Amino acid sequence: MSEGGFKKPWSGRFSEETEKAVEEFTASISFDSRLYRYDIKGSIAHCKALEKASIITSDESDRIISALQEIEKEIEEGKFEFSTELEDIHMHIEKRLIEKIGELGGKLHTGRSRNDQVVLDMRLYLADQIEEILSNIRAVQKVLLEKAKSSLDIIMPGYTHLQMAQPVMLSHYLIAFIDMLDRDRERFLDCLKRVKVLPSGSGALAGIPYDLDRYYIAELLGFPEISKNSIDAVSDRDFLIEFASSAAITMVHLGRLSEDFIIWASSEFGFIEIPDKFSTGSSIMPQKKNPDVFELIRGKTGRIFGNLQSLLVMMKGLPLSYNRDMQEDKEAIFDTVDTLKGCLKILVPLLDAVNFRKEAMLTAVNSGFLTSTDLADYLVRKGVPFRKAHEIVGNLVKYCISSSRRLSELTLEEMQRFSPQFEIDALRFIDPWNSVNTRSLPGGTARICVEERIREIERQFAD
Amino acid sequence: MSEGGFKKPWSGRFSEETEKAVEEFTASISFDSRLYRYDIKGSIAHCKALEKASIITSDESDRIISALQEIEKEIEEGKFEFSTELEDIHMHIEKRLIEKIGELGGKLHTGRSRNDQVVLDMRLYLADQIEEILSNIRAVQKVLLEKAKSSLDIIMPGYTHLQMAQPVMLSHYLIAFIDMLDRDRERFLDCLKRVKVLPSGSGALAGIPYDLDRYYIAELLGFPEISKNSIDAVSDRDFLIEFASSAAITMVHLGRLSEDFIIWASSEFGFIEIPDKFSTGSSIMPQKKNPDVFELIRGKTGRIFGNLQSLLVMMKGLPLSYNRDMQEDKEAIFDTVDTLKGCLKILVPLLDAVNFRKEAMLTAVNSGFLTSTDLADYLVRKGVPFRKAHEIVGNLVKYCISSSRRLSELTLEEMQRFSPQFEIDALRFIDPWNSVNTRSLPGGTARICVEERIREIERQFAD
Amino acid sequence: MSEGGFKKPWSGRFSEETEKAVEEFTASISFDSRLYRYDIKGSIAHCKALEKASIITSDESDRIISALQEIEKEIEEGKFEFSTELEDIHMHIEKRLIEKIGELGGKLHTGRSRNDQVVLDMRLYLADQIEEILSNIRAVQKVLLEKAKSSLDIIMPGYTHLQMAQPVMLSHYLIAFIDMLDRDRERFLDCLKRVKVLPSGSGALAGIPYDLDRYYIAELLGFPEISKNSIDAVSDRDFLIEFASSAAITMVHLGRLSEDFIIWASSEFGFIEIPDKFSTGSSIMPQKKNPDVFELIRGKTGRIFGNLQSLLVMMKGLPLSYNRDMQEDKEAIFDTVDTLKGCLKILVPLLDAVNFRKEAMLTAVNSGFLTSTDLADYLVRKGVPFRKAHEIVGNLVKYCISSSRRLSELTLEEMQRFSPQFEIDALRFIDPWNSVNTRSLPGGTARICVEERIREIERQFAD
Amino acid sequence: MSEGGFKKPWSGRFSEETEKAVEEFTASISFDSRLYRYDIKGSIAHCKALEKASIITSDESDRIISALQEIEKEIEEGKFEFSTELEDIHMHIEKRLIEKIGELGGKLHTGRSRNDQVVLDMRLYLADQIEEILSNIRAVQKVLLEKAKSSLDIIMPGYTHLQMAQPVMLSHYLIAFIDMLDRDRERFLDCLKRVKVLPSGSGALAGIPYDLDRYYIAELLGFPEISKNSIDAVSDRDFLIEFASSAAITMVHLGRLSEDFIIWASSEFGFIEIPDKFSTGSSIMPQKKNPDVFELIRGKTGRIFGNLQSLLVMMKGLPLSYNRDMQEDKEAIFDTVDTLKGCLKILVPLLDAVNFRKEAMLTAVNSGFLTSTDLADYLVRKGVPFRKAHEIVGNLVKYCISSSRRLSELTLEEMQRFSPQFEIDALRFIDPWNSVNTRSLPGGTARICVEERIREIERQFAD
Repeated sequence: MSEGGFKKPWSGRFSEETEKAVEEFTASISFDSRLYRYDIKGSIAHCKALEKASIITSDESDRIISALQEIEKEIEEGKFEFSTELEDIHMHIEKRLIEKIGELGGKLHTGRSRNDQVVLDMRLYLADQIEEILSNIRAVQKVLLEKAKSSLDIIMPGYTHLQMAQPVMLSHYLIAFIDMLDRDRERFLDCLKRVKVLPSGSGALAGIPYDLDRYYIAELLGFPEISKNSIDAVSDRDFLIEFASSAAITMVHLGRLSEDFIIWASSEFGFIEIPDKFSTGSSIMPQKKNPDVFELIRGKTGRIFGNLQSLLVMMKGLPLSYNRDMQEDKEAIFDTVDTLKGCLKILVPLLDAVNFRKEAMLTAVNSGFLTSTDLADYLVRKGVPFRKAHEIVGNLVKYCISSSRRLSELTLEEMQRFSPQFEIDALRFIDPWNSVNTRSLPGGTARICVEERIREIERQFAD
Repeated sequence: MSEGGFKKPWSGRFSEETEKAVEEFTASISFDSRLYRYDIKGSIAHCKALEKASIITSDESDRIISALQEIEKEIEEGKFEFSTELEDIHMHIEKRLIEKIGELGGKLHTGRSRNDQVVLDMRLYLADQIEEILSNIRAVQKVLLEKAKSSLDIIMPGYTHLQMAQPVMLSHYLIAFIDMLDRDRERFLDCLKRVKVLPSGSGALAGIPYDLDRYYIAELLGFPEISKNSIDAVSDRDFLIEFASSAAITMVHLGRLSEDFIIWASSEFGFIEIPDKFSTGSSIMPQKKNPDVFELIRGKTGRIFGNLQSLLVMMKGLPLSYNRDMQEDKEAIFDTVDTLKGCLKILVPLLDAVNFRKEAMLTAVNSGFLTSTDLADYLVRKGVPFRKAHEIVGNLVKYCISSSRRLSELTLEEMQRFSPQFEIDALRFIDPWNSVNTRSLPGGTARICVEERIREIERQFAD
Repeated sequence: MSEGGFKKPWSGRFSEETEKAVEEFTASISFDSRLYRYDIKGSIAHCKALEKASIITSDESDRIISALQEIEKEIEEGKFEFSTELEDIHMHIEKRLIEKIGELGGKLHTGRSRNDQVVLDMRLYLADQIEEILSNIRAVQKVLLEKAKSSLDIIMPGYTHLQMAQPVMLSHYLIAFIDMLDRDRERFLDCLKRVKVLPSGSGALAGIPYDLDRYYIAELLGFPEISKNSIDAVSDRDFLIEFASSAAITMVHLGRLSEDFIIWASSEFGFIEIPDKFSTGSSIMPQKKNPDVFELIRGKTGRIFGNLQSLLVMMKGLPLSYNRDMQEDKEAIFDTVDTLKGCLKILVPLLDAVNFRKEAMLTAVNSGFLTSTDLADYLVRKGVPFRKAHEIVGNLVKYCISSSRRLSELTLEEMQRFSPQFEIDALRFIDPWNSVNTRSLPGGTARICVEERIREIERQFAD
Repeated sequence: MSEGGFKKPWSGRFSEETEKAVEEFTASISFDSRLYRYDIKGSIAHCKALEKASIITSDESDRIISALQEIEKEIEEGKFEFSTELEDIHMHIEKRLIEKIGELGGKLHTGRSRNDQVVLDMRLYLADQIEEILSNIRAVQKVLLEKAKSSLDIIMPGYTHLQMAQPVMLSHYLIAFIDMLDRDRERFLDCLKRVKVLPSGSGALAGIPYDLDRYYIAELLGFPEISKNSIDAVSDRDFLIEFASSAAITMVHLGRLSEDFIIWASSEFGFIEIPDKFSTGSSIMPQKKNPDVFELIRGKTGRIFGNLQSLLVMMKGLPLSYNRDMQEDKEAIFDTVDTLKGCLKILVPLLDAVNFRKEAMLTAVNSGFLTSTDLADYLVRKGVPFRKAHEIVGNLVKYCISSSRRLSELTLEEMQRFSPQFEIDALRFIDPWNSVNTRSLPGGTARICVEERIREIERQFAD
């Protein structure tokens, strides 16, 4: 007998009390307490279903529900006492319920098991969190869009292999991230379909011998579907892994953006300026201003990948149905949710605050040989096969490098030494904005395309 | 100059030839040669778009296409020579094309880059593979369904914590795996939406200065969408990670099924018999018959999780846009595809061949105390609060264990010593089939539900 | 200006104060506060080195050290106030030091940077933790040894492929885990060599312009070596990854032990009994007794593998030297340490409490065909080539199965039908203890070997 | 009966032949054939032990050994036929042996099992590979050392957070990588101790009933230790995981080096020039020269981390002793070995070929405020507390930035406006070489330290 007379819910078959160290090792209350709101929400729906099935009376239902609501308030106000002895959030709430309304509290457990209850809690929790993450992602997209709109006059080097490749509009670059985040949103939305599936009514694993209306519970909780097999319902953690995987891909995107911005913030690139209030300094080097937030985001990809791997490993090789190993799902998911939301949230003011240094970007564009491809394409139009044209311009670049010249500093005569097809109009193709604007298929970097794409995104965001 | 006069496509700017060791280290032909069919398919569509844009004539287009078709045939018939000097499958095919039709072959590269070409190839390849995997999964589901239909008279212990919990129908158990595989199919279908997005027209990263009709190419290739940002299009490997993640979850399911079947094949459980032709023996222990195939499937979860991790790590922290690191995507994906298909394919005849030992399962059901929950539920119906009922039956079980009795061997008098609410009808609740059949909500293990679910699945599969 | 007038240590170059959200996102104090003891230990050693170099006077040194000791006490007694505004544990302690002894407190930072300070803290912390883990492992080994010593009369089936293979002594089985843990200890000891390397004196990355005696600091802290390159010293997190990897391998072992014990605790195997006080029950099924602790340990392998992966990913592709990403090392390591220690600690009383069911194990041994190999070896000794002998006994087993007999129930005449080389002494080779005792090479399961091995281990543990 | 009359070694107990698809799924010959040399080496040692134990005669031993040597030659010369029907390399060699010398060939299997044989093969293989890797690492270290020796006059910016921090010698930077690789070598050497442990004599899992001299076999194979528990010996794959983990850490180092060199090769940094023959170009952009090899090395960290994860997952939760899952160890290890060796080998000529651009590095050093710390330290020496000095110099830097000046362009008067402690000697502390040379503790970047460290390394390499 322990904790003010509250017995373990399964003490009947046992001759000895649980070892203290075992209680501590197996307790999940230190991390699953954050599920209280969802546990109570699920319990209220369950209670209404019990009432609908006439297992409890309408009056009993009212008393249970208002006691549950009081408990929710107690927890929110910090007046609720947690103890490892009571294992998990379900037991805490149940015990308190019984304290409040006596044996009636015990009836709430009719027709359910912790095996289906905990899955329901996680599904309710995650559905909420995904909604939040969707709007966090949208907020990042919006700030990127604002930046893209206000940067329409900025041209920058596009990179492959971190080598300057072709000129692009900064706006086009920023929109690339909006598109990645669009896919992330889609993946979370697809995942959400599989999160909002009601497990209630699955009992411990075999179903329940009470005539509860599962569709009614689903409706109360806003879930469009119910699970179709009770064994699967209590064994399934796919939805958590799928979520963690979607989060990992999102973090790939945030990490890549961070890498770009860290490189751009180096004084060698000098493409951006991060305001003081979003940087930190060095305790020893007075001149330092570090892009810490971007670095931390990049670093946090590690923990998100690790969490995904934890969940996969946890499930590997488990026999059906529920196994206690699965309790380990929670911290990995909570940390994934918190980290992802944290990164998305800090990016909104941070990206908003970043200043793009237009002149530095333009200087870089002009110093590279970024319009070489345009010159090659020019020759193609004059009838030179592409591979040949590529070779001619390659030689031209080699010549420039050895004589420390830019393409724009070449005379037509010099160019014609490499190919007689070069004519006066060739010089136009050395201009970076010309290069940008010739790439005018849908999805290209031409200003006309970028502006059209911005309008398209604005319509999409308005929905 | 190398390989019969074929220059590197980028040799113009270079003064030295590539070091042999570098060629070998960077070449991907040893593994990307398997993409030849998709590379040619993509090239034919590209060629038609060049024709439509009047960049090449209809006659030129015909010559290119028929030469490409010849090359495809040469590769299929093993008459094509591969060499690490030519780096990758794109260069091999291009070089052969030029051998066949001269400089015209070079024109095919107009308006594209290997950066968009390789993504297109991977998308075409993966779209095909996902279709195959979807039908491989369906085949496994079908054999599970057949087994479920022919096992309607088999009752078995359902487990939680690998401890006998409640009786369930074997058919219900098998259907749990059908349901998992249903989610896997859904995930692959969701992924497929994001695979079938056309990158062509993105060029190296900035788009192309040719007026190709991207929607026309998409239509030719059966892709419903085109990419919306050229930088993103060549940088994006999300679709591969998402695929690898879906494969990892599928492998979790196959691994759990394998774990169950390995445990069931132990002589201690003795629930299944795997025919000789699906087992292997020991080189040293003459009596051994091992469930090797299930073990290997379980073991192969490791490589699939590893491949997912490889892809995530490869992408971590890469600046935009294309980086050569991304070449590493292929082997991880090819191995994932091959492994997953291999596991799914072998499961079809294997599951079909497994014999379920009905008597052994029934004996296990009767020796446990699997209907304890039913007795507790019985008491609840008599007005005992659930927690109290649970405790009473717990004491009853403790009594049985200490006197080496089964529940079915108790007299009513003995039971009443534990609770006066036990009456003559309580004995019925000790029967496992009664237990099974009372769990008759949708998704429950009651025979009526299982049969309904089977009909539902049959309708679904008929679509 | 913030926090009672305490400026950021790098505020000089900055025009704006740090954004609150950035402070929260970048602060590590919520988790690195646990390093306080090591931070202070390192600071005291640094202070003594400053004194030795005459950078501070002996009196100053005394004042700093006693203030640091007071701070340590304040933290231990819960009287110390933590705030995210002060970022990390180093700043907290420094600020408090200055509060106590004024500007002199600032001198302590002479000749060091947070970049080398945080590595020192982690090295001091981990060195301590590894010592603890080594003794935790030894404790588990000792309880396994006690069990092995008290089980010398228990014979059990040895398994390959979870199929009964050959009889072994339970003691031999338990010692297998002692040997695994021996390797784990070796790995941690090897890792420890690389942990105890002093980074102090590396400054931010380039070394320091003060004449501190690095060997003296190392000696004060019990580190046998000093780092040899300042850039490497602040960039290096190998020691954490190596530790996490050693922990992962240890968890493989604990997870495999858990898997075995979970399977043995099933009623089908019935090889062990876990006392009530080390089990938990079901909230719904009154008869359940679950091996939760073993399940949780098995499940926790996931998080440890995940942590290892997190650390590797965090470091992937980072340029030299220090990057803020590395702050993410702490939580992964702390969680690894806590989890591993938790698992090891709970195993001591748990393994001690487990009862092995000798009769059940013996029955299993007798019901299999575990001595088939012995019969084959018997034939080999009679001159039959091994492969032929293996085939003969295979046929014999097939005959037994089809006639539902055990090997011990065969007559000599029956055996001779399969091979005339079987003579009366063959029957002895059907006895499992005979089988066990013939395997008497070092490392074999013969009782004589196991007893010798036990003595060897006892000598080892006595050191 | 199959393959020219060769029966499965375990066919006696089986009534049906193995399904073709199962043979293919379970066969490992496609990848384990590379172990042939080690399998034969192990067999020869086993054969000698059988002779020493008088199980076979000296003449029989000679015939077996010379037949095995013939088989080795056949394989080396490509005259050996492989078939999936024969599962693995052990069966292939055994079958061929029997073809050559008849039933005597079967005797070789006396006293061993594939369970201990395959572990022995892997241990022999890995011991060889580690030796090779150790010398591959040393070769990379040597080329780094040569570069360090020839770069003693090059000063460069040291970075933290990819922001210029303090000036360092390029040689010091390069030596940081030598030190990382030193630790890698140590880890591989520690791992090697645990690789060279002889499993022979463990049989299937219980030991063997033949009086073989295990120490004699160990001596023949150059293994200093024998395994101490037969169950552990066939279950253990720690040595593979530890190797994979050491490889992963090494790849972290190679990946970081690659990241640095990729960034340095950007035209914005422009610190290095990679010769044409070690670069590749773009098929579309004529001006491109890409650091592909470094990118691929960085990308390959992914597959190595993935392999480590695969191995850990494969072992997770496996009951003792051998399980077929473990067959999956081979490809992960082979790929790890091949990849690691490939990266190390290509780095030798590549690093040798890289040209460091001294002027570009110096320009960068002068344009940053890299000696700010030195100015702060100067003030500390004048009695200003470090934190205060840091703030003063921070303000000085802010002043320089706002007036577009370098530190070296300030007058003493200007400096004194920020602190009266600045005197004429302060100007010396603005010089980067002064900064470098004041950092003269062991491990610092001062030229005197770097030269001493080079001599130390040369002595070490000479051993």
